[in-house]
Amino acid sequence: MAADPLLHEPVTPPSADVRAQATARLAALATPPGALGLLGDLAVWIATVQGQVPPAPVDRVRAVIFAGDHGVADHGVSAFPKAITPAMVRTFLLGKAGVSVLAAQHGVSVRVLDLGVEDDLDGVPDEVTAFKIRRGSGAIHLEDALTEDETLRAIAAGETVAAEEIAAGAQLLIGGDMGIGNTTPASALIAASLGLPAHEVTGRGTGIDEAGLVHKTQVVQQALDRAGDRVADPLETLTALGSADLAAAAGFMAAAARAGVPVLLDGVISVAAAIMAERLAPGAASWFAAGHRSTEPAQSFALDKLGLVPVLDLGMRLGEGSGAVAAVPVVRSAALLLSEVALLSDLT
Amino acid sequence: MAADPLLHEPVTPPSADVRAQATARLAALATPPGALGLLGDLAVWIATVQGQVPPAPVDRVRAVIFAGDHGVADHGVSAFPKAITPAMVRTFLLGKAGVSVLAAQHGVSVRVLDLGVEDDLDGVPDEVTAFKIRRGSGAIHLEDALTEDETLRAIAAGETVAAEEIAAGAQLLIGGDMGIGNTTPASALIAASLGLPAHEVTGRGTGIDEAGLVHKTQVVQQALDRAGDRVADPLETLTALGSADLAAAAGFMAAAARAGVPVLLDGVISVAAAIMAERLAPGAASWFAAGHRSTEPAQSFALDKLGLVPVLDLGMRLGEGSGAVAAVPVVRSAALLLSEVALLSDLT
Repeated sequence: MAADPLLHEPVTPPSADVRAQATARLAALATPPGALGLLGDLAVWIATVQGQVPPAPVDRVRAVIFAGDHGVADHGVSAFPKAITPAMVRTFLLGKAGVSVLAAQHGVSVRVLDLGVEDDLDGVPDEVTAFKIRRGSGAIHLEDALTEDETLRAIAAGETVAAEEIAAGAQLLIGGDMGIGNTTPASALIAASLGLPAHEVTGRGTGIDEAGLVHKTQVVQQALDRAGDRVADPLETLTALGSADLAAAAGFMAAAARAGVPVLLDGVISVAAAIMAERLAPGAASWFAAGHRSTEPAQSFALDKLGLVPVLDLGMRLGEGSGAVAAVPVVRSAALLLSEVALLSDLT
Repeated sequence: MAADPLLHEPVTPPSADVRAQATARLAALATPPGALGLLGDLAVWIATVQGQVPPAPVDRVRAVIFAGDHGVADHGVSAFPKAITPAMVRTFLLGKAGVSVLAAQHGVSVRVLDLGVEDDLDGVPDEVTAFKIRRGSGAIHLEDALTEDETLRAIAAGETVAAEEIAAGAQLLIGGDMGIGNTTPASALIAASLGLPAHEVTGRGTGIDEAGLVHKTQVVQQALDRAGDRVADPLETLTALGSADLAAAAGFMAAAARAGVPVLLDGVISVAAAIMAERLAPGAASWFAAGHRSTEPAQSFALDKLGLVPVLDLGMRLGEGSGAVAAVPVVRSAALLLSEVALLSDLT
């Protein structure tokens, strides 16, 4: 019996009044109008999602890495073998991955969860595998990623994790990813949701060559063709084209938005989950900001669809939530500037 | 009698061997090749300028704001009156300016110096005015900005300040600016140094309108025409088209490069000073990195000339060193990633 995600429950938008107050305070700072650029926009966003002007410092940021394997990884879509996925889960636990180093720098907590790794992860703490849905999701060009029950359970797992992180005091959440092959289902979810063909969205992931890109594009298109009209429904889309980790990340983000807690998005995996969160919980995206622009074309299409401009544009394609964590100090800067810079009226 | 700047003394480039070692370590990290994007390039740069692999954490960052007024500000090139310059010097001292807030966030020291403010700054600490060259620099479309003696003294002041900051332990220096009208001489310095016409480099500064932009472009072109062939010499260029604050910032950056201490550049004023530092001390730019891309066209031309890709691109145009200070955590991230992420060889 599946858990019961809060499907299609409406998301309360952030307050327009608070947004107007934040915009007015930004205009009243002792800086030339517009001189803070995107930092000003971010400052208004963070004040608005916090519901207070000036905003509070964004001290408590919590990242969750949703790990899982993907059947397509056995079909030539990635430069790396599946064995990397459990190895990286262990590297996160050792604090030696890219996201670990960035998170330690910025005081961001990192929690790694195995939703669908194709490995038993012997010896890792039980809480890492507590939400495991299955060992590897289906090869989406040949079969559904998940059963409908698994999709519902994965979404519910993400909702539970969001609730736990919020209860632990999160002021800002980040959804990260780990899973060899995961740019393929992420690209398929974005293509399906935006009505784009595979050749527009498919990128090189961790670094496949030209022939690999041609093949990967065919795999994504084959998956889209296989799913057909089912992609009109978000649950069917996740079942056909997603994965346990992507469905959980979507549930996580939708639940954060429903709870009024902002989410800072990472690369193409995170943004694919955000697109699905917006479909599951219309209006969710107003609680999201974009941490960085990845090199994956699907990510840029999806950010445009969500109306989000990324904080960083560093040509990163590491995943793990790393781009979002790298952007945390900039989000914090935005909040601090709106609260601490002198007002023009104070100078005169 | 003028001080004697170390004009044209050659700059020792960072070690190619260390660069090769840093590049090799980056390739050996447990991340896909190239996945760190610009963070990887920055990591190699910081290791190279430090002369050690892995690099040390970039803990001690020191910013100096070179403040001054500009005669052109009386000729319709700015949206703000000159009285803002001393008011902002006082705001820096109160820790309430944009750069102050960012610097406090990131543990960056900020020192503000009056090189040429058109105000006596009564009541501010003596050390702020200790290097003052004159009250306001000349209106460059009508007269030289400085006398030759003033240019030399301003450069020497910057060199002295750099030596002081390095003696205080700086691992990374930032040169910031304050001065109503300062994008006009900065644009003229860049245009003169790159051989570009005014209409290609001139931007809106703190926010002039279309008519103001047309007029400002005419002022810049008039200044370039007035300087004529003198722009072939960097000292003559600073004398004709610069200002006390810009000459000091150029001396500061040249001295940092000669001492082998890296500099993180800010917006168009900072990058104009960097262009002049490179002309005064050829090779200096190999010790520079670009903190952010400003909205001023001259800044992008100058960054291209210096071969630098900015860390942040947030549409900021605040000056003060704010964009560079906002980029400090990203530079720190780069150093930490290269030193702390697991090596692939450790995982297997």
